[in-house]
Amino acid sequence: MAETVRTALTIAYLGGGFAGWQVQPDARTVQGELQRALERLAGRPVRLTGAGRTDAGVHAAAQVAHADLPASIPLPGLRAALNGMLPLDVRVLRARRVAPDFHASRSAVAKRYRYRLAAGAALEPWEALRTWLLPYRLDAAMMAAAAGFLAGTHDFAAFALSGHSGTGRRGCVRTVHRVELRRRGRRLAITVEGDGFLRGMVRRIAGALVEIGRGARPASWVADLLADPATRPPAPTAPPHGLTLEKVFYGRREAKGERRE
Amino acid sequence: MAETVRTALTIAYLGGGFAGWQVQPDARTVQGELQRALERLAGRPVRLTGAGRTDAGVHAAAQVAHADLPASIPLPGLRAALNGMLPLDVRVLRARRVAPDFHASRSAVAKRYRYRLAAGAALEPWEALRTWLLPYRLDAAMMAAAAGFLAGTHDFAAFALSGHSGTGRRGCVRTVHRVELRRRGRRLAITVEGDGFLRGMVRRIAGALVEIGRGARPASWVADLLADPATRPPAPTAPPHGLTLEKVFYGRREAKGERRE
Repeated sequence: MAETVRTALTIAYLGGGFAGWQVQPDARTVQGELQRALERLAGRPVRLTGAGRTDAGVHAAAQVAHADLPASIPLPGLRAALNGMLPLDVRVLRARRVAPDFHASRSAVAKRYRYRLAAGAALEPWEALRTWLLPYRLDAAMMAAAAGFLAGTHDFAAFALSGHSGTGRRGCVRTVHRVELRRRGRRLAITVEGDGFLRGMVRRIAGALVEIGRGARPASWVADLLADPATRPPAPTAPPHGLTLEKVFYGRREAKGERRE
Repeated sequence: MAETVRTALTIAYLGGGFAGWQVQPDARTVQGELQRALERLAGRPVRLTGAGRTDAGVHAAAQVAHADLPASIPLPGLRAALNGMLPLDVRVLRARRVAPDFHASRSAVAKRYRYRLAAGAALEPWEALRTWLLPYRLDAAMMAAAAGFLAGTHDFAAFALSGHSGTGRRGCVRTVHRVELRRRGRRLAITVEGDGFLRGMVRRIAGALVEIGRGARPASWVADLLADPATRPPAPTAPPHGLTLEKVFYGRREAKGERRE
């Protein structure tokens, strides 16, 4: 087998046209489109591993994925070659060589997601593609108060998609480093940074905060859901098109793409 | 015939999925989609008249159009009803009653277009949809200098699409009130405001400014094209997806939607 080099790609996509990140038979997926372009370049099967498996309809501003590519493919021009083959709703923003033990998912130390909301009248279509539009006003101060309960290490089972019982040793326990609510006029953005996310977790956090923002629940409801995840009624789930994977964080060595000897 | 009221709509659309504004047989057009939705509401044929016939691929942040609708259709809820029937790449931002002599195109006193450019690496797809991405750096200062020549009343024949010989008494003479270049990092926006535009004019202005920005022509080339429109070689045309109709200006009475008794 020819020599390969591990290569990391930073990828942006509009989720609306995809059945999510992960390859599925007979469905258009981000991983599928990227693998096909990489295979045309490499002339052989390529396995691409993403940092996070975003769901159908979810966008990414900077998803990270790695693949082992033939060393004969030059790094300069790789991004342009891929973008020339890819459809316009997925773009490679950056390509870099990484250490052979770099793993887009396992080397990641944290991720940042953003959920975009707007209240009131229609949005321009380029904004509507990535924003959950609600017909009522939201109390941003109440939502910020509720968001405050989320930071820290908690059992987030109430914020997992139904049927999700957690993974491995840590179950549904995750650490949220930061939750931030930013308001600009009738637009609201919820930013959540954490060491890991359950499937649907950010969309269910957004759904719960909207319930609070429209006055259907008190801010303390979030604390109740965290305190007693098993018995509380599940929070509603916000639609996928409001959600964007904004950033994947790696340790210093991985971020620089240095090679360990 | 039942009583009608003249109604003005403010409309935003992503141009990529449309063969332009104007209805054409067997083509998806903005006017066609809107008329179909209006006709479903009105239960009879509706003729919608737009302020400007944007070309295939060109976007609008605030196109204006008018139609005479049955007085029985209530204004509150009209926007939401239309948006409920329309595809997501065209949105009605506002609906208002106007005077019976309001005419979206003939009452307009000026329009503002914006052309978006970026130099260098790939863009996130939601930005790429509305931006002309160029593989080289642009000298924004030279482009701004060249843009300065465009303001004022000129014969813009060199900036019309080929075969365009102007319209009516004023031929290709138009007045540009304002041309502004704004730069943010590798992104550039060209804003042009004027009393009227020839077909393709803003895209040809953008094309000429890019020629200057990349150093292929001196800034004075724009002055040459304006001074002698008939004999100069035509300027290149920038692609439609960078262009957005940003605003249509009306006189004070039309803007307010007052009714003249």
